[in-house]
Parts: sequence; C-alpha cells; structure tokens
Amino acid sequence: MNSRFLWTAKQLKPTLTKSKHVLIPKASLAEGEHVDLDFGDHYVGHIHFVFQKEGRHPDSPALLHFIFGEKKWELEEDNSAYHGWIAKSWIQEEWVHIDEFPAKINLSRRYAFRYCRVELLGCSQAYRVLLQEATLISETSAPEKIAIVGETDQEKAIDRVSLRTLSECMQDVFEDGPKRDHRLWLGDLRLQALVNYQTYRHNDLVKRCLYLFAGTADKNGVLSASVFTKPKVVGDGASMSDYSLLFIPTVYDYFKATKDKETLLELLPLMRTQIKLADAQMKDGVFLDPNRLGWCFIDWSLELKKRCACTGVYLYALRELIECERELGYDVKSEEARYQEVKEAAKKEFYDEKNGLFFCDGQLSFASNIWMVLGGVLSPCEGKEILLRLERRDDAIRPVTPYMMHHYLIALYECGLAGKMRNLMNEYWGKMVQDGADTFYELFDPEHPDASPYGSRSVNSYCHAWSCTPSYLLRKYFLHGEQL
Amino acid sequence: MNSRFLWTAKQLKPTLTKSKHVLIPKASLAEGEHVDLDFGDHYVGHIHFVFQKEGRHPDSPALLHFIFGEKKWELEEDNSAYHGWIAKSWIQEEWVHIDEFPAKINLSRRYAFRYCRVELLGCSQAYRVLLQEATLISETSAPEKIAIVGETDQEKAIDRVSLRTLSECMQDVFEDGPKRDHRLWLGDLRLQALVNYQTYRHNDLVKRCLYLFAGTADKNGVLSASVFTKPKVVGDGASMSDYSLLFIPTVYDYFKATKDKETLLELLPLMRTQIKLADAQMKDGVFLDPNRLGWCFIDWSLELKKRCACTGVYLYALRELIECERELGYDVKSEEARYQEVKEAAKKEFYDEKNGLFFCDGQLSFASNIWMVLGGVLSPCEGKEILLRLERRDDAIRPVTPYMMHHYLIALYECGLAGKMRNLMNEYWGKMVQDGADTFYELFDPEHPDASPYGSRSVNSYCHAWSCTPSYLLRKYFLHGEQL
Repeated sequence: MNSRFLWTAKQLKPTLTKSKHVLIPKASLAEGEHVDLDFGDHYVGHIHFVFQKEGRHPDSPALLHFIFGEKKWELEEDNSAYHGWIAKSWIQEEWVHIDEFPAKINLSRRYAFRYCRVELLGCSQAYRVLLQEATLISETSAPEKIAIVGETDQEKAIDRVSLRTLSECMQDVFEDGPKRDHRLWLGDLRLQALVNYQTYRHNDLVKRCLYLFAGTADKNGVLSASVFTKPKVVGDGASMSDYSLLFIPTVYDYFKATKDKETLLELLPLMRTQIKLADAQMKDGVFLDPNRLGWCFIDWSLELKKRCACTGVYLYALRELIECERELGYDVKSEEARYQEVKEAAKKEFYDEKNGLFFCDGQLSFASNIWMVLGGVLSPCEGKEILLRLERRDDAIRPVTPYMMHHYLIALYECGLAGKMRNLMNEYWGKMVQDGADTFYELFDPEHPDASPYGSRSVNSYCHAWSCTPSYLLRKYFLHGEQL
Repeated sequence: MNSRFLWTAKQLKPTLTKSKHVLIPKASLAEGEHVDLDFGDHYVGHIHFVFQKEGRHPDSPALLHFIFGEKKWELEEDNSAYHGWIAKSWIQEEWVHIDEFPAKINLSRRYAFRYCRVELLGCSQAYRVLLQEATLISETSAPEKIAIVGETDQEKAIDRVSLRTLSECMQDVFEDGPKRDHRLWLGDLRLQALVNYQTYRHNDLVKRCLYLFAGTADKNGVLSASVFTKPKVVGDGASMSDYSLLFIPTVYDYFKATKDKETLLELLPLMRTQIKLADAQMKDGVFLDPNRLGWCFIDWSLELKKRCACTGVYLYALRELIECERELGYDVKSEEARYQEVKEAAKKEFYDEKNGLFFCDGQLSFASNIWMVLGGVLSPCEGKEILLRLERRDDAIRPVTPYMMHHYLIALYECGLAGKMRNLMNEYWGKMVQDGADTFYELFDPEHPDASPYGSRSVNSYCHAWSCTPSYLLRKYFLHGEQL
C-alpha cells in the first residue's frame, strides 16, 4: 500500500450528480398480487416508496418483496431456484414488513435497474396495500449529457446506449457494472477511460482510479486486478497477468489525453515493473503454462487457452511502454531488443504454417490471433490475411464478451479492415439494441443470449463498462471532429 | 369515539421496563449454513446483531435470513409452503443484505421469541460471515418479579410459566399474544386482569384498557371486540356478542380489585348498554340464530354451535351487573326479573331431559354446558351432575383453547369439584410444561398438538394471554395468603 498514492486518490473523489424520478402508480394490491414499475431508462441509485392501506384497519403486517431488474425478465425469474457459483446475494431483491400505515419505505442499498416489481407476499384480507409513490434518486459522476453521433439511426442508438452504459458505471470510481460487482477493474478501466476521453472527459476520475491501483500495489509492485473502495480502499489481492500489463497503456492513454506529465512520471516505475513481473513468468520469450500464471483473463471463456493471447498482450504493453519512454526521452534500446525477442519467440511458438493462423497449445481461437495482431507480431498486410482466414474458420473459439469483441474490432481496423470493423460493430452491438438494451451487456453471444459463465443469467450484469466502446470507436475512427 | 375516555387511556400509557440479553455466538457461516440462538426464555423485544467477515475481502454482499421462534421447531418450518388463511406476514422472519463489514444490523420490528436462526442464504466463496454478537432488548410493562406458588414442582412450573405468559403480554396494553396479534382483545383482557390482580397488580394498565374499549365504542355503545393502538387508537369495528357482554364482569372485577368507584360509575352506562344490545339479538329469552349474531367467539372451534353458550354468557354478565348495581345501591328488580326470564327460557330451549345435558340445536358440547353452569341456570348440585355426566360423553365437543378450559375449571370449582378442577389444571397445563412451554399457548389440544384454526401451526401464538390463568386459579382458590 502506498499511502501517498491513496491520499491523491482520495482527493479526487468525485461528487455524484443526483436526479429525482417519481412514479405515482397508485397500485392497489391484495396478497399475492404485484405491480411492475418501469422508470423508462437504466438508472443507478436509491429508491423509496410510500405505501398506504385501503379497507379496514390492518390486522396483520404486510410482507413486501421488491425485485429490481436491468432487464424486464429479471422480475419474472424464480430466484429461489438460483444455484450458480457466484453469490445469490447479487440478485437485487429485498423483503420488508410494514406494521403501520402510511409507511415510507427507504431501501438503504443502491440498485441498478430500469424495472422494479413490488409484490405483496403476505397480507390479511382486511385491507389492501396501496403503492402511492416510488421515488428513485439516481446517481452518476458523469458530468453532463453528450451529443449523440452516428451515421445511421442504428449507430446513433448504439452510441446513445454506449454513453448511458459508461455514465451508469461512473460512480465513485469507474465501476465494472453497477449491478455486479460495483468494482474498479483494471481491464474495464482501460476501455472506460478511452471512451471517457472522447465523451465525458472526467479525466480526474481516471486519475483517481490509476492512483487507486498504484496505491494498492504490493511491495513488489504487483497490481491487484481490482480494487475495493468500501468500507475502505483495499486491493483484492488477486492479480491477472493481462490486466497488470494493460496498466501500461492505461496510464499512457491518460497522459496522451491530458498531458499530465507529473502523474505519468510518478507512475512510470510501476509501469516498468509490470514488464519485469511478466518476464518472470515467461521462458524463452513466451508465457509458461497458464496454470502458473495466476488468472489470465483475456475473455470470459473457461475453455480458452491463453498463453498465446497473453504473450500478445505483453507485446502490446511493451510497445506502449517503449513509445512512452521514447516520448519522455529515455533510452529504449534494451526494451526494443526484448520486444523483438518475444515477437520472434511468439511467432515460432504459436504460428502454424500449414493453417496460416496462430494456435495456442493446439487450440484455435480468435483471442490468440487478435492479440498476436495487436501485439504487432505481424505486419498490417499479414494481419489482414490472418483475420480474413480466421473469419472463415468455424472451429475457432469466438469472442463471448464485448470486451474481447472490442479488441477484435481494433485489430480489424489496424489491419486496414475499417469497413468490416464498422459493420461488425453495427451487427454485434446492434443486436443488443434490437434486444431492447438500455445499456450494453457484460456478456453477449448472439447465438446464446442467455449464456452465463456464472451458472445463471440472473447474476449477469446488463450494464457493463467494457461494452461501452462503440462511443469511442465511432468518434476515434469515423466521426472525429464531425459532431463533437 | 369518546375522546375524553381516550384521553384518560392515553394518560395511563405505561413505561416499558427494558432488559439487555447478550449472546456471543462467534459463529462462522458459509453460504447455506446457519446458527441457532437460544436466549434461554421467552422474550418480547428488539434485537440487533454485529457481523464481521472472515477470509478475503467480501466480493459480494451477504444475504441473511432471520427466523424467530417461540418454539424451536419454528426455525425448521418451510415458511414458503405456508398457505393458511391468515396472513403469512405474521411469521417472524426477515431478510437483510450486508454490503460492508463489520455490520451492525438493527432489526426495527419487535419479535416474541426464545429461539432465533441466522441463516446465510447468499455469500461468495471469498469469505465467511461471523456472527459476533446478538443483543436482545426485552420489553414488558409488568412491574416486578412475582414469587412462585404451587404445592408440587409441577404446579410451581405451571405458575412460573403462567406468570411469564402474562408479563410477556403486558406491553402498552394487555396484548393477546406478542407474536400475533399484538392486540387488546376484550375476552383476553378479562382473564389477564384477573391474573394481574393476584400477581403484578398493574391495575392502571387494566384501567387504561377499559378506557380504550369504552373510548372506541360506537355511538350506540357497541364495543369493538379488539382495539388497535398503533399508529393511533381505533376499534377494529367488529363486535362479538360474548366479548361485549364480558365487558360487564371485566369492569366489575376491576372495581372489586381497586375500589375505584369513579371509574365504575363512569363506565356503568356502557355496561348496562351491553345487556340492552344483547336483548335486541334475543327472542323469547334466548339468542337467535348465530348467523344473525355477528361473531360469537366462545371457543376457537368452527363447528361449535353457540346460541346456548352465548345465552349462558348473557346470564353470567347480567348476574354480575345485578350484583354490581346492588352494591352501588341501585334498584335491580327489573334486571332480576329479566334474569329469571332468560334462565327459564334457556333451560326450556336447551336442556335435554333424556340425556340430562344441554344441547345446542342438537349439538352436545362442553361449551354449552359450562356456560349454562356459569350463567347460574342450575343449582351447584345440578351443575355437578351435569359436569360429571358431560365428562363421560365422548361425543361432546371438547374445549380447544386454554380460554375455554379456564371456564371449564371455574365451572367445576363452582359445582364443588375443586379437586377435579385442580387435577385437570395440572393435567392440561402440565402437558404444555412437559412439551417444554416457556409460555402457555393460544391453542392446546393434547390429542392434536399441531392443530391450528388458521391452517398452519406456524402462525399459532405460543405465548397467549388467555392461557395464563393458572396463576390466578392457584392463588384465588387454593393458596390464598399462603405464599403471597
């Protein structure tokens, strides 16, 4: 823990903008009945209710059940049947008894939702419960509304939903998802920051998050993959190889957006450390057995083999570090030599001449090939061929998250396939828009929309930071200067 | 509503004595695990908990379920399966999410319980939840401890449990049951007051309750069978023929215990009114079809025919009124004539010469015969024969509540069967003691201990005012002056 860094982070704690949204449902409920509320858009915040009774004097308490859903179907789920491997307690529901009417029920917790079901589980026959008013106080640290961009209605819709996704995740920190985990993750932060520079420009919030990671690094400079901020700041103690390496571009992107050299210089030693820590996990220029890695994320796929992709992430990060150090006037010869060494080793270890594609321990995946491209193992021309070849391979493991999809799009662009990139963005994110998304999802496989790595879609997050990058892609690659 | 009466009741609002009971369970729970707490006796009050976490930083909320039981088996019930006809919301349970540790959880509602289960329904695998401390603040308006009486260990146990039952029901008013309904009922009050005069002597609490009934009578003097006091005082609007009549002895008992003539004179008109209101429901000296009565309680039995018993209650109440008026110096000739008229009519209508027992519309029950005895329809000698004959009839509907059982005991005593009365008291209440009762039950049928008129024992009350009369019976009839 670096207390100076944490002090800096604390000074940058943002003020939340609060807005009030009132519904007057005047719904009259008997035992077993419910009313569904629709706040019209995705919100993050606190809610309170005013209940009155109708009929005779209540001769029993009333037992109410509240369910909150980012998607409407969450209201219909049988949550008692949930048996996924992550905590059931993420499901946004509460139970409250009312003994006296009228009753103002303040639910103390924060929820992320558009829909809310109020269900009267228990009540006597002497009276009915009247839901008079539901008041949501929404919260975000996103500073303002942003003008929508896009050439088509669909692109505009994608941009609108992306912006909402990001602003909903902007709270005390850049959260991964306001429904679950409410937490600052390094991999999410990098993408959120990129979108932020093009849109909300709340750059101090990025700076705060960088210092939270830096401040919670251990004495060897190992970064936590995520940081808890409540009740006090603490790293989660688990490190991810790819996320740690991506700290380098995350800081450098911040510098490019802000020119805040003081912060860059303060964090530069920690950026360099990430390469050294990765080196210790590599042999002959490539990552060792993934089981020795700790967890390497890459994509939300449990079958994915990750040595190749992780080596690509290393190359990507190292190249960013070299560029950054060069800009600062440092000598980068040894880093450049290391970059060449790993690049050649990766090609030798993973490239399959016969197929003209990268394989990781016998497994073909988009992830391996995308990160070889992003790591600069190939020239743009070679990369283009790889990506076109990959597209035709039905046996390749495909991206399952918008996070991996984002990297696929960047790889396409960098290999001169801008049109394909834009089409794919429209297709993939467009399908979520067609699915009625108010915000973009943590996971989206168009073939299996209900899939969940957690064992149940009930705990999937349907407003997830890493899926908001279309607002970045549109502005950075296609519409720069046009509508900003 | 009589606001002057209600003002008097308000002035008499008691102070609750609070006591603190702390358990330090230090129970460590993983998802799906629970800990059962035992506070060692029945208590009424509020509870708070201190939770800590063990293991890594919580990466999910914890979802806790609390169940409170007067009986230990209440902790094991599958409450989701409850489908009785009174509100499920009476089941004493709560659900609470904890987002940050350590957490002090103050449950805001009042519970009646000895046992408490704390169940961890949802939690991640990163940590365990440690229940460090559970603090119960118990409440009663019973002023002091009372010395136990009884000739045998069993009688002493019965007295102890009776006293506890009463003190647990002594709150802002004399409640029927602190688990359910938390409410002042006229029939319960009469018996509670009798026990109170022999034990706690909190006579102002009786006075308060009398004024609450008097203050909520309607403009015709119709009393509510029960009174709600929260959020403000209001009669429940439903009247019961037998309970209304029993207002007369309840006030007169109060006068005999306190010599508070001012209160008696203030309430006397309302006592007289109860007879007049009953008269209007009678024809030729007996009650009409029970369907025209509104509800007449007598006992918690849905099959019981009640015209006969209710006529007995009328005679009992009228005799009390006559005695009271005579003591005050009023002329009681017309009341005495009415008493004789009804007494003869009752005998004519309900007495079956062939069986030598009272039948109500063809139905034989203890209730009918007991109230004919208590109403004075028979001489003590005749009553004795009736009760002995009744005892041998397996086809007679038996008492199902301690409330009806109390009246049976009084009838036995008045007919010179004091030994039988004491044996039966020892047998009936003794069986509850053997069942582990800390307080006596709302319903107790030794043959069917799990029976419930509500469709499930889960909503039965196991600390119920009307079952506390052994402490009165022992002191009034057997041990007067001995150990008081």
